[in-house]
Amino acid sequence: MLPWKTIIQIERQAIVPVYLQIANAVIREISQGRLEPGQKIPGSRQMAGLLDLNRKTVSNAYSELEGQGWLEVRPSSGVFVVSSLPTVQYQNIGIANNGPVQKVDLEFNHFKSIEPYRKLEKYQHMIDDGSPDVRLAPLNTLMKYCRSVANSRYGKKLLSYDDVQGEATLRTVLSQYLRETRGMDCKPENIVITRGSQMGIYLVFNMLISKGDKVVVGNPNYDAANWVMQTAGAELEEIPVDKEGISIDALKDRCSEFDIKATYITPHHHFPTTVTLNAQRRMELLELAEQHRFAIVEDDYDYDFHYNSAPILPLASVDKKGLVIYIGSFSKLLAPSVRVGYIVAPEEMVAEINKLRRIVDRQGDPITERAIAEMLKDGEVQRHLKKAVKVYRERRDIFCDILEKDFADHFDFQRPEGGMAVWVHFKKKIEDKVFFEKCKEFGLYKNVDREFLKKCGALRMGFASLNEKEIKGALGVLKSVMESLV
Amino acid sequence: MLPWKTIIQIERQAIVPVYLQIANAVIREISQGRLEPGQKIPGSRQMAGLLDLNRKTVSNAYSELEGQGWLEVRPSSGVFVVSSLPTVQYQNIGIANNGPVQKVDLEFNHFKSIEPYRKLEKYQHMIDDGSPDVRLAPLNTLMKYCRSVANSRYGKKLLSYDDVQGEATLRTVLSQYLRETRGMDCKPENIVITRGSQMGIYLVFNMLISKGDKVVVGNPNYDAANWVMQTAGAELEEIPVDKEGISIDALKDRCSEFDIKATYITPHHHFPTTVTLNAQRRMELLELAEQHRFAIVEDDYDYDFHYNSAPILPLASVDKKGLVIYIGSFSKLLAPSVRVGYIVAPEEMVAEINKLRRIVDRQGDPITERAIAEMLKDGEVQRHLKKAVKVYRERRDIFCDILEKDFADHFDFQRPEGGMAVWVHFKKKIEDKVFFEKCKEFGLYKNVDREFLKKCGALRMGFASLNEKEIKGALGVLKSVMESLV
Repeated sequence: MLPWKTIIQIERQAIVPVYLQIANAVIREISQGRLEPGQKIPGSRQMAGLLDLNRKTVSNAYSELEGQGWLEVRPSSGVFVVSSLPTVQYQNIGIANNGPVQKVDLEFNHFKSIEPYRKLEKYQHMIDDGSPDVRLAPLNTLMKYCRSVANSRYGKKLLSYDDVQGEATLRTVLSQYLRETRGMDCKPENIVITRGSQMGIYLVFNMLISKGDKVVVGNPNYDAANWVMQTAGAELEEIPVDKEGISIDALKDRCSEFDIKATYITPHHHFPTTVTLNAQRRMELLELAEQHRFAIVEDDYDYDFHYNSAPILPLASVDKKGLVIYIGSFSKLLAPSVRVGYIVAPEEMVAEINKLRRIVDRQGDPITERAIAEMLKDGEVQRHLKKAVKVYRERRDIFCDILEKDFADHFDFQRPEGGMAVWVHFKKKIEDKVFFEKCKEFGLYKNVDREFLKKCGALRMGFASLNEKEIKGALGVLKSVMESLV
Repeated sequence: MLPWKTIIQIERQAIVPVYLQIANAVIREISQGRLEPGQKIPGSRQMAGLLDLNRKTVSNAYSELEGQGWLEVRPSSGVFVVSSLPTVQYQNIGIANNGPVQKVDLEFNHFKSIEPYRKLEKYQHMIDDGSPDVRLAPLNTLMKYCRSVANSRYGKKLLSYDDVQGEATLRTVLSQYLRETRGMDCKPENIVITRGSQMGIYLVFNMLISKGDKVVVGNPNYDAANWVMQTAGAELEEIPVDKEGISIDALKDRCSEFDIKATYITPHHHFPTTVTLNAQRRMELLELAEQHRFAIVEDDYDYDFHYNSAPILPLASVDKKGLVIYIGSFSKLLAPSVRVGYIVAPEEMVAEINKLRRIVDRQGDPITERAIAEMLKDGEVQRHLKKAVKVYRERRDIFCDILEKDFADHFDFQRPEGGMAVWVHFKKKIEDKVFFEKCKEFGLYKNVDREFLKKCGALRMGFASLNEKEIKGALGVLKSVMESLV
């Protein structure tokens, strides 16, 4: 007799009814080979006695098992495991709850070019790589709009499957908005709504790249963009970045050496160094692209945040050859978790991007997308932007003033013209591990882009998400860290 | 003198201030070569006259252009385009608003294995491929939970960047829920939250497949899954599907012929034919996988919707070798636009899936994910499910009763035990184009899975999204269509 009471463990508080718990336990035992095809098991009356249950409950379980093809009741002879089932070699791997499998005896891909994901930690003082302050985000407004969209006459339609390319009204409103604010000449058909600019980068490069294609990127560059290109099969050609942006001379050299498929740029504020690509280089870049037929992927993730002057027009606004593919985002404007971004590209490319999007996650969230469209129409996004730019400009100045005053011995930096972070060079070489350990010890946490310290002797320090008190707190701790390292 | 009034078109209603509109127009003209390096342009007073604007406005524009490096003011001689800018060959491609570029002179990938995306159309009568009824979805409840999560003490944290793997509380609650309802032994570390099951399929196969790997799939199978595998580089091996599910004998033959990397199955209700994989085949499949070391990707997209008996336990509940990767979804339960699904896999695989997810779209929507966790804890999801199953069972019976009564001459079908659609065989061969044109003509729209009519002489007809009146309406029109085709 098997130890039925141990095998079939009933949890009376569980969501699943008791009769199903019995059935599931029996299936598990058959599948794992402890119960063999043709084996007799106790009848419902006997089993009920063994398990201290009502006989009706066990009968229900047996009916379920008969219906599913696991048990057969032979009249006047008893209940048996269906004899045509295959025999499984029983291995005593324990009864349920022995934990999931960890070691897999199977080959699969390891994405060596992508850094392993490091979970975020929570510290009292944090310096990020340039995130917006979610406390300023008009989230209640967004939710109000979402509710009103969902309850509108067209709301139910938006809850079902919607256009792969993105909610139609948002694409229409956005094409107008991009024309007015950025001088871009695009129709709703040229716009693909994405899950933030990251998905924009992913879709664009998977559409562009065939294995072995060369893509030119600045050094240093945005990691997660490099990872996309490498995973798509591209070979990266790195060129220097100086105070005017990526070096066009270096790009020219590369063009004369081999065929280039694309270049990835963040010309408004180069990531991570924050410099703006100057006018001359913009024109030269466009000319080179036309001459050598390569695509310019322009990631304009923080277009709206420029403090010293008006934002610089994107390259996409003057491209007339369909060589510039433009990527933008609302995530910096609203909140990182509101993942709505967009691609602007020629329709031929949009058709292929749509196919890819279809298989990646089918579509975006049409309620949120429509809500953003309505907020744009009502000027809510623009009002928030104005306020946020003012706050972030002040925070940049507070942050940079302290850097100038208290860190003159330690850091070199340029006050950035826009964006949400300062690119800070360490005057003395510091072992990155030593620095971050010291930070942790003092209670300061730098959660992303840590590898730049090793690679460039510099760090990207976000000022936008911290208020005055938090900036003073974090930089105060940083000062102690730096002094402890002298 | 250039036609300045035509070149610089001012829109007084636009969001962008007039001075920036002037600046942007000048940048466009320089970038496109109409204004050449070193060329003199009218001073601010003269330009103001030409454009009928205030001189101050033009001065502001010129300052902006000087700051950005496009213009230089030479004292007592005038305003000039910066002479160090590169010369561009001017092509008269018109002044703004001449429409975006359509034809791209650049190579890029065409995803030939993916069907072009066809926009949804709106007709009076529609038959889908088995979507839930969004009118039943507890969307107001979900929004209420989202609001309360966003306004909670932990809400602001969730608005910023969150865990790539998915919101922590949802993974914890879900691991408990899967254990209780599906007998699956998994920890929060084994769960990756995705954007619906489609992203689950995408991430899993891109983790598993190297170019040329063979994946066995049923014929017919879910298109968008086949597209994922093919795009990831897999070679598909099709095996027949009968009334008990995929043919294990055929799978055995394939295993003896070559190495198989994985099989993709929808065992609860095979897509599109709706049949349930029987007990014997389940056991044989697990045995084969273990013997030949291939992965079983189990897509259990509509687990919850089973009408004749309790849902059948997933294969993942009895796998102890880490060979079954399980994909589930809340999208059928809540609404297609609420794209929250999950993968359950061994931790080693989860690490690689996380890397890929990081570059695809960074993360999901932690507010919605946490809201679903709270709804699960409060039993809201379960309550909705109970109601929905009752409604869909009734609709299945109404739909199938009419098919039996009115379409005996035209169709063969099996009343499905679960899911949201019936698999309907046409007794007579009908040219698919003729059929769909007739449908349109009569005002009936079949929006997806149309290719099955050509391929299998059958169609998947969704009953769940239609109420009784709508079912009668749609099938009434379908009857007229069928009679018109005799």
